[in-house]
Amino acid sequence: MAEALKLGVAGLGTVGASLMRILAERRESLATTCGRPIEVVAVTARSRGKDRGISLDGAKWFDDAVSLAREADIDVFVELMGGAEDPAYSAVKAALARGLHVVTANKALLAAHGMELAALAEENGALLNYEAAVAGGIPVIKAIRESMTGNTISRVYGIMNGTCNYILTRMEKEGLTFEACLKEAQRLGYAEADPTFDIEGNDTAHKLAILTSLAFGTAIAPDDIYLEGISNISIEDIQAAADLGYRIKLLGVAQRTESGIEQRVHPTMVPQNSVIAQVDGVTNAVAIEADILGELLMVGPGAGGNATASAVLGDIADIAKSRPGAQRVPAFGQPTSALRPYRRAQIQNHEGGYFIRLKVQDRTGVFASIATAMARNEISLESIMQHSKQPTDEQAQTIILVTHATHEEQVRKAVSAIRGEGYLVGEPQVIRIERPKDN
Amino acid sequence: MAEALKLGVAGLGTVGASLMRILAERRESLATTCGRPIEVVAVTARSRGKDRGISLDGAKWFDDAVSLAREADIDVFVELMGGAEDPAYSAVKAALARGLHVVTANKALLAAHGMELAALAEENGALLNYEAAVAGGIPVIKAIRESMTGNTISRVYGIMNGTCNYILTRMEKEGLTFEACLKEAQRLGYAEADPTFDIEGNDTAHKLAILTSLAFGTAIAPDDIYLEGISNISIEDIQAAADLGYRIKLLGVAQRTESGIEQRVHPTMVPQNSVIAQVDGVTNAVAIEADILGELLMVGPGAGGNATASAVLGDIADIAKSRPGAQRVPAFGQPTSALRPYRRAQIQNHEGGYFIRLKVQDRTGVFASIATAMARNEISLESIMQHSKQPTDEQAQTIILVTHATHEEQVRKAVSAIRGEGYLVGEPQVIRIERPKDN
Repeated sequence: MAEALKLGVAGLGTVGASLMRILAERRESLATTCGRPIEVVAVTARSRGKDRGISLDGAKWFDDAVSLAREADIDVFVELMGGAEDPAYSAVKAALARGLHVVTANKALLAAHGMELAALAEENGALLNYEAAVAGGIPVIKAIRESMTGNTISRVYGIMNGTCNYILTRMEKEGLTFEACLKEAQRLGYAEADPTFDIEGNDTAHKLAILTSLAFGTAIAPDDIYLEGISNISIEDIQAAADLGYRIKLLGVAQRTESGIEQRVHPTMVPQNSVIAQVDGVTNAVAIEADILGELLMVGPGAGGNATASAVLGDIADIAKSRPGAQRVPAFGQPTSALRPYRRAQIQNHEGGYFIRLKVQDRTGVFASIATAMARNEISLESIMQHSKQPTDEQAQTIILVTHATHEEQVRKAVSAIRGEGYLVGEPQVIRIERPKDN
Repeated sequence: MAEALKLGVAGLGTVGASLMRILAERRESLATTCGRPIEVVAVTARSRGKDRGISLDGAKWFDDAVSLAREADIDVFVELMGGAEDPAYSAVKAALARGLHVVTANKALLAAHGMELAALAEENGALLNYEAAVAGGIPVIKAIRESMTGNTISRVYGIMNGTCNYILTRMEKEGLTFEACLKEAQRLGYAEADPTFDIEGNDTAHKLAILTSLAFGTAIAPDDIYLEGISNISIEDIQAAADLGYRIKLLGVAQRTESGIEQRVHPTMVPQNSVIAQVDGVTNAVAIEADILGELLMVGPGAGGNATASAVLGDIADIAKSRPGAQRVPAFGQPTSALRPYRRAQIQNHEGGYFIRLKVQDRTGVFASIATAMARNEISLESIMQHSKQPTDEQAQTIILVTHATHEEQVRKAVSAIRGEGYLVGEPQVIRIERPKDN
């Protein structure tokens, strides 16, 4: 049997501890599968003494990640610390500069510094593997980077945040408010004490930025993403969506258009009979539309120590199965020199169907006024109806519109015109509709 | 740039022609992605003169596949002829014996000779890649063989035959008979003139045999598969399933049990609210349940020239990206010497829920008699009901039973006892229920 593959693991939180346990428990079968043993010879974490229920025997302890990356006698640096900046950033750079392969689960780091790190990996003949950084256990990076080689991708979209999907699923199934479901998610450990990063879509945006680069061969542009969270989604929206044959999901969508690439994260109505509409709870899903392959949808656990560790282990095993320096899989699908600049398509130019919910004063002529505003902005309507399911004030009624494909700018103008008429009660709700191909 | 990767392509049918076209059209971008050009330098097909709308310039013509595999100056032998026996079998052996990598889409060949070919590949340091052989464009081989390294898999199941899924979907959506939908499938080119191989489950069985070996680390056992086709599924079954909250799909299922590994292909009721139940038409889906990762479901095109060519191209690209002889990915996940013999779990021992549809004479005591037969065989019932949706004769009624988890043997005994009572009209229908984890 060949020489062992030597790992240095930085970060021993849930994922790191899970990885250490699996590597120890399955040492022999992994050696058989990979053709050589995999050994953790160096570790670092914030606290040395903490009981993690795993043995660190045989691994050299380093007090900081950068020293480990610089000095440890290892083949692969496994970065499981998280965070876009130091120590993760400097440690990964130090490892790549030495020609060490890097395996990381750190979406924030890649979204912020992915291009620089990919270039550094190339220069030094190292691999930069990051399957765990997007959609946890779902092998979406491998599918795009390897399986779909040669395909031109037109759209990538998915449910990439378990917290949001859990909340939206509970709201729909049990008729609870957003606030009640968020509390429940926090109680169960599906949401952080400060849930902003998840529910406002930032977490999804980080993952989307990575997928966009990989799918479209462009530089990562994490700041050029249109962002809308789920905190203003009401039960009324969810019920109206259900009545119309839709479900509401927080999607990240990257799409090739004539004016550039759209990157957007927002609550989205998807047809109830589509496969992605059935993805409930903390489960994630990613769909990829490509010209040769067609549409591929992958559904699986997007987070959790074990699922994430499984993805990290897959990345490590890929390295173990090849001879040192023998593979050249560019981090973002092609050499960084071949990646094109990202050209942002403005959200105003987005074309698609829209759901619009308006609470209006109950007076004659409102229907006609709304329909006129739509017509003046050349918006073709699929339906316009009074929605009676919700108890509304005596003086107010709810009107739901669904448009055929139109431009965001036209919708904004129409809504603004309606606002000017003075009969609106409260804020209008506008939700984009996303259809899988052939639906 | 490194030297070109030289391919010999045997078979220029739909998939072969599609591959040739893609390789020609995307020559430059593939060279950038893979770090070297990919060139077809040798080809063979049944007829040399046929117009396939592709150029064969620059490729040396061989009159037979075995000579090409033996003599051509190539790095990779791409086998797209199909068929379990010669010429595909001898040609692939000849290629592997020379240490050439082999990429194939041939499920029949692998189901019949996969172990021998994998061993030959190992001996000669060659790769045997066959992503296209199972579920077309869905990267299920890569997911199990690479991404899930280290996982212990408990169940693999899926919709792996587009013909059957198309027929079942049409029957459900339009209330048409099996025969009518089969004719429609034939007219649209989704079913062969002789559809036996698809509708009786043999095609699914070939694919399942390959997945079983890969997932469970056992020798391929294509003849040890319990097989039931869809030709006796009636509209009555589909409607009763819908009323009970299920859909009927032809599934291939491989499952680890205490008495061995179950491999079975049969019409199956899946819960309507599960993701796999929404997979309609010719689309395929494969689910994998693993102990570390959890459940992964992949949905995509299972056939078609382009989707299959995309999978073949992914396999070729993997080879192009690594230096010659640098990778050691064993064909079935681990060295053939480490694969265990396949131990078959008998279908009689299968444990699960059952749907039973009985047409009975309309006389007093029938309900009680059926319930007693179930009780005597220790079968616990979830429901027993008279199903009135279908027009039945005046003297007959339809009774539908759904059982809790029970053993196949008990169900068979109970049905046999009921048969002995003399009130059955026609044949009883028994359909197994399969539930995704956590459903």
